[in-house]
Amino acid sequence: MGTRTISVLCASAAAAGLACGGGKSPSTGGAGQAATLTDLMKTRGLSEADVSAALKTYTPSGKPDEYLLFGSGGHSGHVVVVGLPSMRLLKYIAVFTPEPWQGYGFDDQTKAVLAQGNRKGKELTWADTHHPALSETNGDYDGQFLFIGDKANARVAVIDLADFTTKQIVTTDLINSDHGAAFVTPNTEYVIETSQYATPLGGEFADPREYKEKYRGAAVFWKFDREKGRIDKDASWAIELPPYVQDLSDAGKLVSDGYAFFNSINTELSWGGNAEGNPPMESGMSQNDMDYLHVVNWKKAEELVKAGKFDTIAGMKVLRLTTAAQEGVLTFVPEPKSPHGVDITPDGEDIVVSGKLDTHGTVYSFSKIKALIDQKQYAGKDPYGVPILDYKASIRGQVELGLGPLHTQFDGNGFAYTSLFLETAVAKWSLKDLKVVDKVPTHYNIGHLAAAEGDTVSPDGKYLVAMNKWALDRFNKVGPLLPQNFQLVDLNEPKLRVIYDMPIPLGEPHYAQIIKADKIKPIEIYPPGEDPIANETAEHAVTGGKERVERKADGVHVYMTAIRSHFTPDVVRVKAGDKVFWHLTNLEQAYDATHGFAIHAFNINLSIEPGEHADVTFVADKPGVYPMYCTEFCSALHLEMAGYLVVEP
Amino acid sequence: MGTRTISVLCASAAAAGLACGGGKSPSTGGAGQAATLTDLMKTRGLSEADVSAALKTYTPSGKPDEYLLFGSGGHSGHVVVVGLPSMRLLKYIAVFTPEPWQGYGFDDQTKAVLAQGNRKGKELTWADTHHPALSETNGDYDGQFLFIGDKANARVAVIDLADFTTKQIVTTDLINSDHGAAFVTPNTEYVIETSQYATPLGGEFADPREYKEKYRGAAVFWKFDREKGRIDKDASWAIELPPYVQDLSDAGKLVSDGYAFFNSINTELSWGGNAEGNPPMESGMSQNDMDYLHVVNWKKAEELVKAGKFDTIAGMKVLRLTTAAQEGVLTFVPEPKSPHGVDITPDGEDIVVSGKLDTHGTVYSFSKIKALIDQKQYAGKDPYGVPILDYKASIRGQVELGLGPLHTQFDGNGFAYTSLFLETAVAKWSLKDLKVVDKVPTHYNIGHLAAAEGDTVSPDGKYLVAMNKWALDRFNKVGPLLPQNFQLVDLNEPKLRVIYDMPIPLGEPHYAQIIKADKIKPIEIYPPGEDPIANETAEHAVTGGKERVERKADGVHVYMTAIRSHFTPDVVRVKAGDKVFWHLTNLEQAYDATHGFAIHAFNINLSIEPGEHADVTFVADKPGVYPMYCTEFCSALHLEMAGYLVVEP
Repeated sequence: MGTRTISVLCASAAAAGLACGGGKSPSTGGAGQAATLTDLMKTRGLSEADVSAALKTYTPSGKPDEYLLFGSGGHSGHVVVVGLPSMRLLKYIAVFTPEPWQGYGFDDQTKAVLAQGNRKGKELTWADTHHPALSETNGDYDGQFLFIGDKANARVAVIDLADFTTKQIVTTDLINSDHGAAFVTPNTEYVIETSQYATPLGGEFADPREYKEKYRGAAVFWKFDREKGRIDKDASWAIELPPYVQDLSDAGKLVSDGYAFFNSINTELSWGGNAEGNPPMESGMSQNDMDYLHVVNWKKAEELVKAGKFDTIAGMKVLRLTTAAQEGVLTFVPEPKSPHGVDITPDGEDIVVSGKLDTHGTVYSFSKIKALIDQKQYAGKDPYGVPILDYKASIRGQVELGLGPLHTQFDGNGFAYTSLFLETAVAKWSLKDLKVVDKVPTHYNIGHLAAAEGDTVSPDGKYLVAMNKWALDRFNKVGPLLPQNFQLVDLNEPKLRVIYDMPIPLGEPHYAQIIKADKIKPIEIYPPGEDPIANETAEHAVTGGKERVERKADGVHVYMTAIRSHFTPDVVRVKAGDKVFWHLTNLEQAYDATHGFAIHAFNINLSIEPGEHADVTFVADKPGVYPMYCTEFCSALHLEMAGYLVVEP
Repeated sequence: MGTRTISVLCASAAAAGLACGGGKSPSTGGAGQAATLTDLMKTRGLSEADVSAALKTYTPSGKPDEYLLFGSGGHSGHVVVVGLPSMRLLKYIAVFTPEPWQGYGFDDQTKAVLAQGNRKGKELTWADTHHPALSETNGDYDGQFLFIGDKANARVAVIDLADFTTKQIVTTDLINSDHGAAFVTPNTEYVIETSQYATPLGGEFADPREYKEKYRGAAVFWKFDREKGRIDKDASWAIELPPYVQDLSDAGKLVSDGYAFFNSINTELSWGGNAEGNPPMESGMSQNDMDYLHVVNWKKAEELVKAGKFDTIAGMKVLRLTTAAQEGVLTFVPEPKSPHGVDITPDGEDIVVSGKLDTHGTVYSFSKIKALIDQKQYAGKDPYGVPILDYKASIRGQVELGLGPLHTQFDGNGFAYTSLFLETAVAKWSLKDLKVVDKVPTHYNIGHLAAAEGDTVSPDGKYLVAMNKWALDRFNKVGPLLPQNFQLVDLNEPKLRVIYDMPIPLGEPHYAQIIKADKIKPIEIYPPGEDPIANETAEHAVTGGKERVERKADGVHVYMTAIRSHFTPDVVRVKAGDKVFWHLTNLEQAYDATHGFAIHAFNINLSIEPGEHADVTFVADKPGVYPMYCTEFCSALHLEMAGYLVVEP
């Protein structure tokens, strides 16, 4: 056995160009290379554990990763795509923020997508993306769509994983911020978005001193039309909620399908005002020992809305709080203390809630809760008339976790993993026994964590990613703004172990989901002349030989094609003051044959993938000669893929 | 020796939680773990060469990388920072494109930086960054500043590596695009920017049919004031050039200090017009066998400008083409064919030019060129009166490289490395013998390449990064727009070998420079109340206890502080229609204690690092209640770090 090892390593050394045998230690014969590999460990300061970690994560040239992580970009407004176990960043998907490499927000098509997300008539050029949700079929990720919420402006975006492109942004003036978004029901019937900071519904004005009376939360159930791949705004509806500052949410599954669960942190009804004699929110919202887990029967709510039992506010059908309370749609269960995460176990039976200022995780039993609701065994009502269940009668138990527990993920083997922000660690615990069995330190200040297929009815285990907020000494210094640190935790060994530290170079990811890579089947090219947002042949698609410039009633229309290595036409003449409608089709049908298109000084910058068509409209207001060119290094003669926009005086 | 290896690996297996000895193969005793490691290779499909590559690149938790790569982001408009050898992306530095995670382009300070880059009165929200240049002292990277050019709009940015922040953007209406930018002289006296697509100087109108007569190129020499850390526009000047489409540039060093070298691709004077009976540029510019290497004596030019021998065009002092030709500032040497890269050897003596449509690299001798110029031994003049040297008398020789040679880098051991786009490979060749000694395939379509300290007078060797334009089958599929692929080539072994494939998740990097990491010494925090753009205490910096809201003649001034976990004041009341001047200081002085600040619906999004002060100005035009909060997960109670902007009717 030892001989075989040595010969394997010897082959390794030879393939690697390292001295084998005669090289470094001529006298040691065949075993010489072993010393060489040991030297490599020494030179690079690698421990034996590092070697194992390296081999568990290194993914050679041309080999795909086993899992894809989709993470929010936080206030970058993007989505990040990471391969596991290599922890290589594969793509930033532009969602709410204009992004020029993708041409996102630069052509008419994607400008229109971004404009869907305008709030109060104002253009928004960023978002605070928090929680991505992969589309599900029967509670399992199906790899078709991704949804993500914007906390700052209460918006939800739809990303099609066929081309990794944002197709739609929805928002409602009903609410002004969200946090429990996006979360999907088990067959993606709905994308759930719950408000965070309460405001008067519909954007009306009310002084915060009237917080209790006039401020409200809401949960929006965005209806997803899978056939069209878009949210159907008209079929969507909402439930009014008390102004308790709803936080995270999760949808029930299997036994709890039809229910959704939100937590809340502000039964104190604090609204700040630290310059007006009030405590700041951080202490104002942390007075009570218990807040309320919101148990929502969304199938019942759907029936009531269909039966017309709603008010319309800001164009949204809203099931009123009183109706929700009276009809059994909304029920509260007390939850300790300063709750943050709410996560449903794979079987749908347990609801795990962590209180930031508690050291426990609380495990609620859905069957107990459902029985109490069915029997109307209420322990009381809140000031808004919402029935409250008895805490002790609703839980299965508690698990002593550690300091600052936040979020919980699951493997397929009966274990749960909870992030401990203050302890800066992950606790592994048994769902059966409610006992911690292992802990691993993280670096530093872990927020969310994500396990492979961790939100599905059948998690994979294998890998866990700790999403750490501070990096401090983990990487080379890059100034006062540091990257976040994703740490890959190996679940394949008896003990939890961090096997990779990955800096996030842009953005502050909050949450992520991890899907088996082979579930994602993206297209390679677009059909000729495709408008990727409309998902059909573009109205102004151009075919080879039909390139032209036409002066019409509304302005000058330029019908242009791109193919390696020229645009046709490559000189375009217009008159100063002309409105110009530029129609550009990439004639390529080869994978990766993307062209860019830029015109100097007009802020025009398109990225057109093979087959793609894009339009851009502008006014050629000033006479001059404006170079235009392909921004993608598409061929050996890419520098010559250029021309001039000639704006005649 | 064999025994030692086995015990090392056994320790490794134990540390890694792998079965050692009795675990997997109880009967094999101490050698059992070796099989376990072999199993890991088998499970993950790792060859022996992969194991070596893994150990050469894997960088354990908490260990810094040895080198930092600064790459352009292409049309993302950013700069990418990558650690070597781990190939982890450490940071995107926002430069020309607004970027919300950094708050870049969202506060008044960085909005003003971006506004410096407006062209023709238009706001630009992207750039096509091409060539980053680290500041140099005596021809060696000094780690203080980074410069980068924008091809699309002919701009140059200054990034301070003390805080990895863009401090300044400069541009001149003299030119409308650039490519040979940014390149620095050996003591960063100047940052060089040469135009690419010729236009009439100063933005005047002229029909492209008057290309030869009225279109021109130019080389701008931006004067850098190291003390201030800014370009001094008034001390900058330019040289008028023929409309030959100047391409890359490089500055001389050591023996060639005082000279700069630009190549060109369009002595044909092609300007496109493929819909007007002309050939497209790709063929129009590829007719001649030779174009011109531009040899520029910039110290002489500087003297002439100081002596007043310039015209002022668009506010820029311009040394006219005729003066440059007559005074020995500008000399041409023929260069074959469709030249792209021009790279000066570390000793400053050789000038390596690659022609995209040639299979050779041409090695010019600076001493030969200088002798010919000094003796005025010209072979002729071009139509603009520029003296031309004899090709054969100017070169040291040629090296047969392969298909589509582009760019060349150097190690410290007498070897050069040239990228071969069409052959999709890197050729290693001997500078002494002008012979190729090795080649390594790259995946795919390599453009630039970068070696460790490769542009300095003393390159390090060790690592080379191949910057490949196409990725095709290298990574998991992520839709029709693919990442670029950076491949790390190990220079430490006798044979060139790719040891890591790194996807670029955003942007299309063109060029990069690689610096020894310990030369970069960034700050960790800002002094209290610092304005990072002005590099001094902000005028409106706020200290703890001095928070207030003041109504002044120009509007409402909000003086706010942020510290974990509250803003003071946390409720701000204004009247609808008020102009609001928001002044926010982060009181933290702990490393990594960044706060964000967002206000709903006003597109307000700041990132304030410890000590930093930022201002943002807006009109509170609509009555309502707007949640505001910290977008950074700064503490366990970060969700409670919030408040309201109350806009009273």
